[in-house]
Amino acid sequence: MPQLSVKGNQMPASPIRKLVPYSDKAKQRGTKVYHLNIGQPDIASPVPALDAYHHLPFDVIAYTHSEGTPEYRKALSDYYKGRGYQVESDNIIVTNGGSEALLFTFGVIANSGDEIIIPEPFYANYNSFAVQSGVKIVPIKSNIESNFGLPPIESFEEKITEKTKAILICHPGNPTGYLYSKEELEKLKDLVIKHDLYLISDEVYAEYIYGNEEHISVLSFDELKDNAIIIDSESKRFSMCGARLGAIITKNQEVLQRALKFAQARLSPVVTSQYAATKAHENVGDYFEESRAEYVSRRDLLVAELNKIPGVICPNPKGAFYCMVELPVDDAEKFAIWLLDEFDLDGETVMVAPGNGFYSDPESVKNQVRIAYVLKKEDLQRSVEILRVALEKYNSI
Amino acid sequence: MPQLSVKGNQMPASPIRKLVPYSDKAKQRGTKVYHLNIGQPDIASPVPALDAYHHLPFDVIAYTHSEGTPEYRKALSDYYKGRGYQVESDNIIVTNGGSEALLFTFGVIANSGDEIIIPEPFYANYNSFAVQSGVKIVPIKSNIESNFGLPPIESFEEKITEKTKAILICHPGNPTGYLYSKEELEKLKDLVIKHDLYLISDEVYAEYIYGNEEHISVLSFDELKDNAIIIDSESKRFSMCGARLGAIITKNQEVLQRALKFAQARLSPVVTSQYAATKAHENVGDYFEESRAEYVSRRDLLVAELNKIPGVICPNPKGAFYCMVELPVDDAEKFAIWLLDEFDLDGETVMVAPGNGFYSDPESVKNQVRIAYVLKKEDLQRSVEILRVALEKYNSI
Ligand SMILES: Cc1ncc(COP(=O)(O)O)c(C=O)c1O
Ligand SMILES: Cc1ncc(COP(=O)(O)O)c(C=O)c1O
Repeated sequence: MPQLSVKGNQMPASPIRKLVPYSDKAKQRGTKVYHLNIGQPDIASPVPALDAYHHLPFDVIAYTHSEGTPEYRKALSDYYKGRGYQVESDNIIVTNGGSEALLFTFGVIANSGDEIIIPEPFYANYNSFAVQSGVKIVPIKSNIESNFGLPPIESFEEKITEKTKAILICHPGNPTGYLYSKEELEKLKDLVIKHDLYLISDEVYAEYIYGNEEHISVLSFDELKDNAIIIDSESKRFSMCGARLGAIITKNQEVLQRALKFAQARLSPVVTSQYAATKAHENVGDYFEESRAEYVSRRDLLVAELNKIPGVICPNPKGAFYCMVELPVDDAEKFAIWLLDEFDLDGETVMVAPGNGFYSDPESVKNQVRIAYVLKKEDLQRSVEILRVALEKYNSI
Repeated sequence: MPQLSVKGNQMPASPIRKLVPYSDKAKQRGTKVYHLNIGQPDIASPVPALDAYHHLPFDVIAYTHSEGTPEYRKALSDYYKGRGYQVESDNIIVTNGGSEALLFTFGVIANSGDEIIIPEPFYANYNSFAVQSGVKIVPIKSNIESNFGLPPIESFEEKITEKTKAILICHPGNPTGYLYSKEELEKLKDLVIKHDLYLISDEVYAEYIYGNEEHISVLSFDELKDNAIIIDSESKRFSMCGARLGAIITKNQEVLQRALKFAQARLSPVVTSQYAATKAHENVGDYFEESRAEYVSRRDLLVAELNKIPGVICPNPKGAFYCMVELPVDDAEKFAIWLLDEFDLDGETVMVAPGNGFYSDPESVKNQVRIAYVLKKEDLQRSVEILRVALEKYNSI
């Protein structure tokens, strides 16, 4: 058969899926595996959304407008207005998850060979969408010592070439949980204006910010009217990952028009998901407060307990539901495999995502893992206990 | 702002959307518009699918496996087995509509600059997915005189170059309704084997074949085990366009593995849609027989009535729910605009899709329109009457 494309070959393996064969084997041996590796919330979707499915008001599951239904775009616009941002319906193109929003954005702004600068560690699928779009990702390392805050702005400027089209930030960050400050965002703002770049801000976790911290969307800078492109999603906001509902949000009319062409090619986003999410927005009640309360108590538990383990460093994430944790091991990927392959504590073990999969060079940082706190507190407590015993044993072998 | 990508610029405008501003204006004037331009069935989705939404057995709308749920893949495999094809669950990657199946397939098999040969007129969005993937479409014209049957196989062979990766057929065809015969498929089979090419068969309308005709999937040729890639979709089969549920089906393990990487990058297909479609497959009853009976009676009416209009040529489509019709006008796009912009019959007019949008060179065939029969019979009858009067008037101006 003819050679398949280089793209398919270059698409990286997902760091959260790489170890699945090992966890499958562990389960076959009867070992219980606590999944600290995945970003699938366990919190129920909003009741109004579930009710919406239960009472669909149509009997033809039909295409909607390619850019989304007027109702859902209005609900999303109202949601942003409620957060203080003047987002109008026609600033929104509805997509199949934030994933498709990323793919369309890369396709709209970049030609093959163009570059996008991204602080790392970053959400691993940025790599895949870049490969699919022929885009080159230029990483800039952020450090665990500074809680994965914004690297010096000069290090961005150094990397800007004629091919640079955008800077992409994840705000708050997956995998780091880091929340950019106003000052950091202003530095980015000045830089993208100076060099005439897009600022893509992946804000799919914006609702999940803890303590007294405040999320400042890049939408808050009027000067970024033409530069800012927001990646939005209902996946985490409403624990509706399987609805596949996201959006591109921007004031840049040209970007919207081009993105619409990508949207029209694939005809329509999901009608039932748009209907359900519209209802969730219209009847949001205290869904976010309740979910946040749950996540923050999990985070507090997890971070406190992890930092008690000798040699473990876990910065306190301000948002999302992940932390990047440094472990006292040489090779966290080997350790993660060992956890599944050889270890158990009374028939139980944990699965973590090797941190190197979130760096463009997997050899560059080898002692970190990403831990997601989408499990109940008692399970998190037990998981940390397993990890503690495992590290002790691993380091004494 | 930096230049946007050439891709976004090259994405063609959809031939069914191009005229929307005119139909909007017509509606504003109070004119009723019969939509013969769209492929959105008016037939209700299956009751078991609707029931499934009404009784979702989960309260977290969660990600599924990237390749689809085991249940849905099994249901789809069983469906194909019921049609006589040995499709196993692991020959299936579930996608967001046939659209995403096409995008993934192009991405998996072709590098930028590679070529895919497609008989034209063809489904216009093939162009968009080709642009998105950097693929060059090499068209081969089929003719209304031969009912849009397969062009001479030599004309395919002539076009094969080192860059040719695949031949893509739409079977039965949108926009032509043409159904390839066993003999035609065998010619294609021999050709792709001889030249080591993929044969992509878009069979999203396979369930809608009329009269005594039989649909032969390219899956029926064992020799094409590694060559054949089927594009599948629930959109038209179950009138579930808005569910965004499709699939890549192939026995080629390498293609499946590569497609899985594309699927993993965007995480998951829609959980609710997979659940609903599974129920529809498991309880299909006589859904297809009933839908087919409705479509065939519409087709018979439409084709008979259209051919009564002087100068109109409408081949009898054997499948899908479209026909490509030759009109006695020089420029069918102008005529289609005139229908919306200047004409009405007692306050009513029709909207048709200009046929040139289905040809790679829109200048090459200018007197055809695509008419979809997704309207009730009385509306179709009335639409043809409107068209008859309109043509008379247009040709006497
Ligand atoms: C940072 C980030 N962006 C985008 C996505 C894509 O999610 P979805 O396509 O479900 O909206 C995810 C999912 O985990 C994510 O973590
Ligand atoms: C021939 C053909 N292929 C693929 C599609 C894509 O449909 P969907 O993405 O809804 O499955 C369509 C839709 O009209 C079509 O006509």
